[in-house]
Amino acid sequence: MPRAAAPGSKRARVLGFIRDRGEISRGEIAAAFELDKKTVSGIVDELLTASLIVPTGFRESQAGRRQELLALNGSHSNHVGIDLGATHIIGVLTDLNARPLDRVFFEIRPGLPVQIILDQMRTITRSLLASPRATAKVASIGVCVPGFVNPRAGVSLVAENIPGWKEVPIRAEFESAFGLPVLTEDCSRALGLAERRLGAGRGRSDFILLDLGYGIGMALFLDGRIYSGSSFKSGEIGHSVVDPSGAECTCGNRGCLETVASGRAIAREAAAGIAAGRSELLAGLTRGRGEDATAQDVAIAARMGDPFAMDLLRKAGAAIGLSLANAVNILNPASVILGGGLITSNPILVESIGAGLRANAMPGIRDELALEVSTLGVDGSALGAALLAARPVFEGA
Amino acid sequence: MPRAAAPGSKRARVLGFIRDRGEISRGEIAAAFELDKKTVSGIVDELLTASLIVPTGFRESQAGRRQELLALNGSHSNHVGIDLGATHIIGVLTDLNARPLDRVFFEIRPGLPVQIILDQMRTITRSLLASPRATAKVASIGVCVPGFVNPRAGVSLVAENIPGWKEVPIRAEFESAFGLPVLTEDCSRALGLAERRLGAGRGRSDFILLDLGYGIGMALFLDGRIYSGSSFKSGEIGHSVVDPSGAECTCGNRGCLETVASGRAIAREAAAGIAAGRSELLAGLTRGRGEDATAQDVAIAARMGDPFAMDLLRKAGAAIGLSLANAVNILNPASVILGGGLITSNPILVESIGAGLRANAMPGIRDELALEVSTLGVDGSALGAALLAARPVFEGA
Repeated sequence: MPRAAAPGSKRARVLGFIRDRGEISRGEIAAAFELDKKTVSGIVDELLTASLIVPTGFRESQAGRRQELLALNGSHSNHVGIDLGATHIIGVLTDLNARPLDRVFFEIRPGLPVQIILDQMRTITRSLLASPRATAKVASIGVCVPGFVNPRAGVSLVAENIPGWKEVPIRAEFESAFGLPVLTEDCSRALGLAERRLGAGRGRSDFILLDLGYGIGMALFLDGRIYSGSSFKSGEIGHSVVDPSGAECTCGNRGCLETVASGRAIAREAAAGIAAGRSELLAGLTRGRGEDATAQDVAIAARMGDPFAMDLLRKAGAAIGLSLANAVNILNPASVILGGGLITSNPILVESIGAGLRANAMPGIRDELALEVSTLGVDGSALGAALLAARPVFEGA
Repeated sequence: MPRAAAPGSKRARVLGFIRDRGEISRGEIAAAFELDKKTVSGIVDELLTASLIVPTGFRESQAGRRQELLALNGSHSNHVGIDLGATHIIGVLTDLNARPLDRVFFEIRPGLPVQIILDQMRTITRSLLASPRATAKVASIGVCVPGFVNPRAGVSLVAENIPGWKEVPIRAEFESAFGLPVLTEDCSRALGLAERRLGAGRGRSDFILLDLGYGIGMALFLDGRIYSGSSFKSGEIGHSVVDPSGAECTCGNRGCLETVASGRAIAREAAAGIAAGRSELLAGLTRGRGEDATAQDVAIAARMGDPFAMDLLRKAGAAIGLSLANAVNILNPASVILGGGLITSNPILVESIGAGLRANAMPGIRDELALEVSTLGVDGSALGAALLAARPVFEGA
């Protein structure tokens, strides 16, 4: 097939450029796009008329001329982002500039019925649509879910870590409920989008993001774009087989990385350790709910110096580091970003992953690799979902 | 940075389309590119004038009108492709249509001095430049080498499997010798190019190619293009760590896939097995040179039913299959192509790799994956190097 022209109109590309640069003058736009002043003025006037950008003041040029500065108009529209995890639902309301305006956090227990989860997601969306902190009309909703997602069809195909979750028509369910455009994507890719726009992925064309939570996900940014694979299923590093004779995994295979190093696996090991009396500290932290101990409990115990908890995290980190090293050898990214709920405030895990990665990546590749830790916190995927929701504003400009 | 326009002029894209389609009419070009007849006629006339295409006859349209057919003019130019492996140098002469016209095969022993290897590569190039089978002037030379290559600088950075091979300025060495444009690339990527144009990768946007020979390489075709990584080092699946406490690898790490499953590793195991009297058949096949037994000897013995040789290949295949499964889980390609010198006529190895891949890839990904075997034979990388050499003709059209 003939190759398509570069996607997006000239106006859309100028708008994206203004967004990425923060503040910029007409002259800088002209220079960056090799356009004449008249063409740039025409495009800028159209963007101003559409309220997509606003003048923000003046700056003196080197030649001593006053240059008007332009920036994205955050108040052009608001957007809702919903992140469904195995243990939580997080909703955020943002402006067009991805500035968080409001937020809802809701903890869920693994095993809730699908309809209850969907109801809760809609309730959270509704509360954000009615938020008193909104700065503009909500223009669209982004929803990320774990597992396999077909963003084109707007369907969540299957989420191994949510029992019964299969072929859920996210877009149809939300569009009919709210009458707004709905976009959907895998949560690790949403987190990757957030890192690329707001976090450690800024300015990077090639990075991989490890999303470590109840499950283990990954987003690939290659040549400046998300790479989703031939059928939207890329990034399943959690199902790297690390021990072919290991425990059975939710996917049906044996010894996947998720069976030894996910939040779920760490929680299971913690519960077993508590039952066997291997950690007084963990038993105390989880008194009365030892069988429901979480990976977060383990992270807290490890920070307090508990040897059993520290050992659990070190083993998980070593396994993750080795699998990451193999992925890095294949892809040669400029950086690896560690993100997801289990990474936040978990220095022992971060350090063990780094050690496993450095020990096993090929020297010529490892020496050029940057290892970074997400600073977006637990709301990262929800922010990414809101960014996804805002995409049509930029692409259609 | 603002996104660049789609690469290549309209004329270049039409030429690539004609090449890929074999034979095509002006009307079909107009339909595919959504261009009017006059514009297409203008482009076609320019390509005819430049001798890049030729009329090949007529076909009756459905409306009963005679349509002239156009095809790439293979005789526009000839191109030389040189493939340097750890155990061979192969040179091919092709026309612009990648049709092989002449070929030189030269076996080398691992450990030859770098200057001798370079001299031999130039001698082979010279003999192809003087080939009586040429159909046009040779316009350019493509050279592929194993290991890390910077194609932009034209430099072979390092080839772990060729002692002393480091920072070899391939482009400069060959351009000064022959006064022709020289392009260079990693041999696995060259093989990938050949598969994409001539082999199992035709029509595929997303595939990975395993290049199994003395070492283990990989080429990634993602979203229709070669993916080289952030510094041209992608595809090092041969350095996936399969056993952190395993044997030392040429890269400096321990237990890389190459230490247990490459041609080099199989040859080493074979020599040890012969010395220990574990295979009479292999000892007979390699009488007098048992310590120099090759992976090809093992393949022959295995085809003859030798249990020791079959076991060696099965173990290697299982390890390769597992590493491939992990790569497939991360990338979700439409297909995996098995290629390289060790794959040809090696059914037991191919079968074991397939079994390891199927056993360990994630079900939702594995079920959609095609596994294919290269049909390009040992000349695949050299053909890819010639295709690489011909690229500027298409891109600059």
